[in-house]
Amino acid sequence: MNTESPTEVRATSDPRALRDALATFTTGVTIVTTRDAEGAPFGVTVNSFNSVSLEPPLVLWSLAKTSRSLEAFQRAEHWAVHILSTEQDALSTRFARAGENKFEGIELESGIQDMPLLPRCTTRLQCRTSFRYEGGDHIIFVGQVVAFDRSDRAPLVFHGGKYAVATRKTPPLTLAPPEGAPIDSRFDDEFLGYLLWRASQQFHLRVQRTLAARELTQEEFFVLIPLFHNDGRSAAAFCSTLADLGLGAATSAIDRLAARRLIRIEPDTRRLFLTPTGHDEILQVLAMTKAIESECLGQLGHWESVSLKNLLKQFIVQTNPGLPHPWDAEEAEPQA
Amino acid sequence: MNTESPTEVRATSDPRALRDALATFTTGVTIVTTRDAEGAPFGVTVNSFNSVSLEPPLVLWSLAKTSRSLEAFQRAEHWAVHILSTEQDALSTRFARAGENKFEGIELESGIQDMPLLPRCTTRLQCRTSFRYEGGDHIIFVGQVVAFDRSDRAPLVFHGGKYAVATRKTPPLTLAPPEGAPIDSRFDDEFLGYLLWRASQQFHLRVQRTLAARELTQEEFFVLIPLFHNDGRSAAAFCSTLADLGLGAATSAIDRLAARRLIRIEPDTRRLFLTPTGHDEILQVLAMTKAIESECLGQLGHWESVSLKNLLKQFIVQTNPGLPHPWDAEEAEPQA
Repeated sequence: MNTESPTEVRATSDPRALRDALATFTTGVTIVTTRDAEGAPFGVTVNSFNSVSLEPPLVLWSLAKTSRSLEAFQRAEHWAVHILSTEQDALSTRFARAGENKFEGIELESGIQDMPLLPRCTTRLQCRTSFRYEGGDHIIFVGQVVAFDRSDRAPLVFHGGKYAVATRKTPPLTLAPPEGAPIDSRFDDEFLGYLLWRASQQFHLRVQRTLAARELTQEEFFVLIPLFHNDGRSAAAFCSTLADLGLGAATSAIDRLAARRLIRIEPDTRRLFLTPTGHDEILQVLAMTKAIESECLGQLGHWESVSLKNLLKQFIVQTNPGLPHPWDAEEAEPQA
Repeated sequence: MNTESPTEVRATSDPRALRDALATFTTGVTIVTTRDAEGAPFGVTVNSFNSVSLEPPLVLWSLAKTSRSLEAFQRAEHWAVHILSTEQDALSTRFARAGENKFEGIELESGIQDMPLLPRCTTRLQCRTSFRYEGGDHIIFVGQVVAFDRSDRAPLVFHGGKYAVATRKTPPLTLAPPEGAPIDSRFDDEFLGYLLWRASQQFHLRVQRTLAARELTQEEFFVLIPLFHNDGRSAAAFCSTLADLGLGAATSAIDRLAARRLIRIEPDTRRLFLTPTGHDEILQVLAMTKAIESECLGQLGHWESVSLKNLLKQFIVQTNPGLPHPWDAEEAEPQA
């Protein structure tokens, strides 16, 4: 045994540490399905999948000898591997549990020899068993791919024991400073506050042009969207919610929208309602902003877009000091 | 063959399409090493690795029958699997190529039976061959893990044929609309414009509190930072740059900063200079914003932070309609 190694080399007598070490190998997530002799569908979540050979096209995966599905797969001539998409983590969790009703409510498609095919996956591989090999407490199934189909859905990833999304690794990307600029100008290119602000600005400057063409301001836009989801809100509480989010100009925006009859302020209660005209207006605006979003996401790339949204959500959740959600119906009563 | 499937099911006669479909299964990246009978080290990059069994602890990987390293691995009693870290993509590329000098310049450590161990990996598994199985144009090696060690380096990922980094997937429920909310309220939770705006707001509301304590506005902050990097800028051109970025209130911010003697406007040329007081002030403010950034990134997690910054930069570069960089020395002359 090497004594110079800076890390502690462990024997395999610590199964938990070994399991954690093995889990540092990232994988996709698949569900493998088949039918038994009576036609009942079987399916298990598997991340021990991999491709083996291209000529002939072979793939492999392993199944625990204790699995309730073992007999069905042992006897099956065919099985189908579904490489899951980022939206199928709940499906993965469902098929990872032992249970009778895994297929309940799923609209199965039908493959070769009526193999049960799950919808909305990234890739599906229909396979014929080539070999079954001994693998300790598992059986290794090797099969030949006989048909396949794929979508452009981003694949789900299993990373360090958790569901994950993957993003292309790019060389460190410098946003600016010209040759010879002082070292500390790197502060800003790497400064998260600048990156968030600038990315948001680039998006919203486009939106603002669209809004300006319809004589709407950004504040008015941010008033109309929450009302589109929940109207009948109290003007005072709503303004307080928006002010907490840094939109201090909501009161005057509400007055302007009321003057244009896009919203209606109920005189007694001071509650806000979208008018039919306002409803049509916001539908048009949402369609236009959706088009801007599509264009931006197209420029960024599909898989990167999934990751960016995911990370922004995580950032919002992790750093939220308790700010309200602007289109929640419940809102804090305004501070007197 | 199923005719109802919405996606086109393909036969395997299109090897390139099949390879692309198989590549949608994400994997980590490993290098497997051994020594031949003469003691020469061999190593190959492998992503067809997976764990098979826990009791006994077995792992597997596949090697092309055409590989120059095949004979060494066929004869070896032991081999070592190195799960690579995100910083080892160049090493992965080196060991993926056929070549004589793969180990040149690498300070090898020594494992069981003098197995060549590479430094700075995420995880290393020293294994004894258990089985060698037929796998089409590959041989499947199954081995028992006899020793292992790991670091906390983030693992490298291979995703869609490219090196990638993986980040934890955020459950959708965190930002989801309340029960019974209309379907289209999902528009906003998933709307990039909202996510960018909200993430930026959460960050800058913290910054604004810090700024307010020093009686500075956000506009004044955005005037001071570029001057910190390049002063001597023409007031008119600088205001035009900032206005292009959506900071229309720069002129009054400049006047207020001059009145507080944080900046100085040269009377003849109308060029702007940071005063020594202004220089000290911005140093303090930058230190405070840097502390806010550290806190936010700590809440998000290290690897998520690296990815978020990377994706925001990509977004900024890809969707930039030609906006100026605020601390570039060169700036467009203002429109007359």
